[in-house]
Amino acid sequence: MHSVGICGTDVHVLTEGSLGQSVLTGPTVSGHEASGTVRQVGEGVTHLAVGDRVAIEPCISCRYCTNCKAGRYYLCPRLKACSIPPVHGLMCRYKVHPADLCYKLPDNVSLEEGALLEPLSVAVHACNRGRDYVDINAKRLEVAQQMGAHVTVHVTSRDSQAMADQVVRALGGHADVTIECSGAEAAVQTGIYATKSGGVMVQVGLGADMITIPLVDAALREVDIRGTFAYPNCYPTALSMVASGQVNVKPLVTHRYSLEQALEAFEVVKRGEGIKVMVKCDKTNV
Amino acid sequence: MHSVGICGTDVHVLTEGSLGQSVLTGPTVSGHEASGTVRQVGEGVTHLAVGDRVAIEPCISCRYCTNCKAGRYYLCPRLKACSIPPVHGLMCRYKVHPADLCYKLPDNVSLEEGALLEPLSVAVHACNRGRDYVDINAKRLEVAQQMGAHVTVHVTSRDSQAMADQVVRALGGHADVTIECSGAEAAVQTGIYATKSGGVMVQVGLGADMITIPLVDAALREVDIRGTFAYPNCYPTALSMVASGQVNVKPLVTHRYSLEQALEAFEVVKRGEGIKVMVKCDKTNV
Amino acid sequence: MHSVGICGTDVHVLTEGSLGQSVLTGPTVSGHEASGTVRQVGEGVTHLAVGDRVAIEPCISCRYCTNCKAGRYYLCPRLKACSIPPVHGLMCRYKVHPADLCYKLPDNVSLEEGALLEPLSVAVHACNRGRDYVDINAKRLEVAQQMGAHVTVHVTSRDSQAMADQVVRALGGHADVTIECSGAEAAVQTGIYATKSGGVMVQVGLGADMITIPLVDAALREVDIRGTFAYPNCYPTALSMVASGQVNVKPLVTHRYSLEQALEAFEVVKRGEGIKVMVKCDKTNV
Amino acid sequence: MHSVGICGTDVHVLTEGSLGQSVLTGPTVSGHEASGTVRQVGEGVTHLAVGDRVAIEPCISCRYCTNCKAGRYYLCPRLKACSIPPVHGLMCRYKVHPADLCYKLPDNVSLEEGALLEPLSVAVHACNRGRDYVDINAKRLEVAQQMGAHVTVHVTSRDSQAMADQVVRALGGHADVTIECSGAEAAVQTGIYATKSGGVMVQVGLGADMITIPLVDAALREVDIRGTFAYPNCYPTALSMVASGQVNVKPLVTHRYSLEQALEAFEVVKRGEGIKVMVKCDKTNV
Repeated sequence: MHSVGICGTDVHVLTEGSLGQSVLTGPTVSGHEASGTVRQVGEGVTHLAVGDRVAIEPCISCRYCTNCKAGRYYLCPRLKACSIPPVHGLMCRYKVHPADLCYKLPDNVSLEEGALLEPLSVAVHACNRGRDYVDINAKRLEVAQQMGAHVTVHVTSRDSQAMADQVVRALGGHADVTIECSGAEAAVQTGIYATKSGGVMVQVGLGADMITIPLVDAALREVDIRGTFAYPNCYPTALSMVASGQVNVKPLVTHRYSLEQALEAFEVVKRGEGIKVMVKCDKTNV
Repeated sequence: MHSVGICGTDVHVLTEGSLGQSVLTGPTVSGHEASGTVRQVGEGVTHLAVGDRVAIEPCISCRYCTNCKAGRYYLCPRLKACSIPPVHGLMCRYKVHPADLCYKLPDNVSLEEGALLEPLSVAVHACNRGRDYVDINAKRLEVAQQMGAHVTVHVTSRDSQAMADQVVRALGGHADVTIECSGAEAAVQTGIYATKSGGVMVQVGLGADMITIPLVDAALREVDIRGTFAYPNCYPTALSMVASGQVNVKPLVTHRYSLEQALEAFEVVKRGEGIKVMVKCDKTNV
Repeated sequence: MHSVGICGTDVHVLTEGSLGQSVLTGPTVSGHEASGTVRQVGEGVTHLAVGDRVAIEPCISCRYCTNCKAGRYYLCPRLKACSIPPVHGLMCRYKVHPADLCYKLPDNVSLEEGALLEPLSVAVHACNRGRDYVDINAKRLEVAQQMGAHVTVHVTSRDSQAMADQVVRALGGHADVTIECSGAEAAVQTGIYATKSGGVMVQVGLGADMITIPLVDAALREVDIRGTFAYPNCYPTALSMVASGQVNVKPLVTHRYSLEQALEAFEVVKRGEGIKVMVKCDKTNV
Repeated sequence: MHSVGICGTDVHVLTEGSLGQSVLTGPTVSGHEASGTVRQVGEGVTHLAVGDRVAIEPCISCRYCTNCKAGRYYLCPRLKACSIPPVHGLMCRYKVHPADLCYKLPDNVSLEEGALLEPLSVAVHACNRGRDYVDINAKRLEVAQQMGAHVTVHVTSRDSQAMADQVVRALGGHADVTIECSGAEAAVQTGIYATKSGGVMVQVGLGADMITIPLVDAALREVDIRGTFAYPNCYPTALSMVASGQVNVKPLVTHRYSLEQALEAFEVVKRGEGIKVMVKCDKTNV
């Protein structure tokens, strides 16, 4: 392993000793945003060679169930998710991993960028989940620019309809696709109200297990609600976006620590400092 | 007009004087499940002739907005829905209606069956909304048979997860597509839990405006929630199903009244008697 | 193995010693329409037990390439297709096969029906390939009934447009979806002309490598041309259709031979006699 | 009208007196790539006001047929295509046109850019037709960049397979989506061979009516062939791309002529000079 980013999920497992129904029962390696260098190659592997720099897609599906064979391999009931107890993660020196989940980085993509393909792939999948409606990227990007750059909405839990009206006015119309990333009840409600009839709300954020939503409004206006889990078939697109310069993820890395300093790195994340904290696991190539 | 079925919505408007934000402000003709005989044909209409028996798709969209031109004409913001105040309905002797919304009935389909195409089209649209997932009808029909014939689940609001387990056991697995037709909170929750990862829950029933759902479960397992409104492009399929004998809707009609007896007919529906109550509007052809 | 049907492809390999670029270089077992009884179960297999009667999906994909992981596993470049040289087929006594490609038959489905799931799955996949357009099965079945029962068109290579006109008249309109099963040039052309604007022509039949088609007509009317290969994710649907009684494949079996009589069975197929010829490989259960 | 671009189709009609089965029978106004200024507004139109600068989507569908109501309005059998005989085009001073086909230009989009939305919309529709396969734009743009910038292939009619090999080598793999814009037989064949299994070839170019293609290769590898006609629901996206600066169409205009000089302008196009020749129809605002 070379660079491993720390994610909120990792902190949650460290602090709480569990994630949902997955409970820590012994020492478990953390980390699932990782890149590394190939040290050994299995029999039959032809697309990788020793020394290749690779990004690592961390979860391993069974490849035999209905969902795996239908192309939705992250819905595999036997999925092994690296760093979710009791499956060991990637924040370590060496790891055996399936070759097809190791994506060779071109020369112009660094190993830190490789580790950042994981969170970027989450975003790619969220966009894919909204794609049936979205014709081409133009509209989506424009909306993203507008929302990112020009609109600030202070969401309150008491008035999601009013908040949605504010978003709609700021956008100059209802959104074709809304991607909700907080999981907060008021934000979910606002997202539904702010999406146009026949549009899609993609749910990325995870909040309380049970959320109250305006189901009649969503149903009658055919605003579809689509969840997301992980990033099936998304790494190649994420890699392509970074390699072609369409997305610049480099500025996201604000802190770097050695593997020995990993606990200190976790403390930084706990305190909410910086954006992305990297643990550098490769002694020979930090 | 010949035969006009009475729907729960019609009773609601009659009793409450409103439907959602649509309020009765004067006498308004009821009825939107209708068939009739062509008495006059407009200029340029070539597919209809005087004397043709037709089923009537009741709502009229603007044909000019984005949704109309994208094929989702029931999401038209200027939709005129027959019998929803203040738009007059079809329970009358004569009505001027766009020719493309009048579907000529073949000889083997009766005018009462024609009126029943409206509720059947609701079902067709619900199936269409689940279709992205469903490969071909076989599975769906089989599931429908199994559920209709073999499974009885007493849903309680306190234990939707347990109810879902019961449904799953009865089906021998999670449902590919769930079509929820009650709108009751517990049933919606049960529907989500009982749908397989990557499946679809189609929401047809309308209950309380705000409903609490297990959003995290739906999101992580990518169970899509899709509403339905009316029946865009569904009348031809519904007509084909009846004409070919695949669906037999005749037994649904349990009561018949003349137009003069319409209030009596409404009383029957209010009391929950029978299945479908028909008002016969054509004096010459009852 | 219990029952193995003989397909035209099997005869082609036997007669020509090759299929496309796949050339016989030594003795190779024939047969890919097969069912059998489980004699031994591998470690970790939970859905099968010794003695289970199973239908066998014959081709084995790599499970690691882009297409496999995207759910189109029959487009795997390393696909091992049983009975296509040099991969051995299933017309033998015993065979080791991946457990996920063995589909347990319910009690009301015979082993011969199990073997027939293979050709039925070809049909299921062809329907799936046309499904984006097809709303629900009703229309398709009706069309199939009409075409199967009422229309006879003598296709000639000289006049595909005239033939299409004849088909359109017989159907009462252009076809929503055309499934072309011959591969003959004139039939392909007729299929395109007979499909409605915005419809789909599914190409199942394989004829000459190079075929002349009316591309401008297909392009301007947006008649999509979609090929088919094998039956990704189709066995469960095919099994469901047979088990539920929606499709009756039993009458297709017209001849039965023991494994020792296999050459005689091939002769029957070569002479074009009967419909489906079965080779019975299980001495204990013929 | 303000600016009207000249297209190859316009020249074809002028030179040949016909386009396909559409034959000139009298004087017919040319031009379908147009923008203008609103001089009068019909009753009920709320999104336009006198003085608004608009881009004009030139073809008028019936709004009543099956295809219109299903969102594929360019497949309308009664489509009135501006400048295709006998329907008058837009190269004139004033024109009555449906308001929903007039797209108001924001201040930062010029009237010439407005006229160029027509050819840009053709490109948008071609991308949309390939979209089922394409996850998000990243890949497509990257491929476009690579092909546009780095690859030069001299296509010959004798060796389309070899040409495809050259394209595949240049791209580093088969194309996910190929957009064929010439209509030449060899290019169509090359496009199919160069597309990956399970990919899509979008056919934009129109050549000879009958084209010989490798149908078996396309069918077995499930390379879908999808035609394109016009630009249903594409103008908003094209306008958004220009307004947001994602696409710069300004450099395409190389020649400008007044309406009185229109014949001279056509001569320039006939001689193949420049890229886009504009006819300026508005005396007061050239």
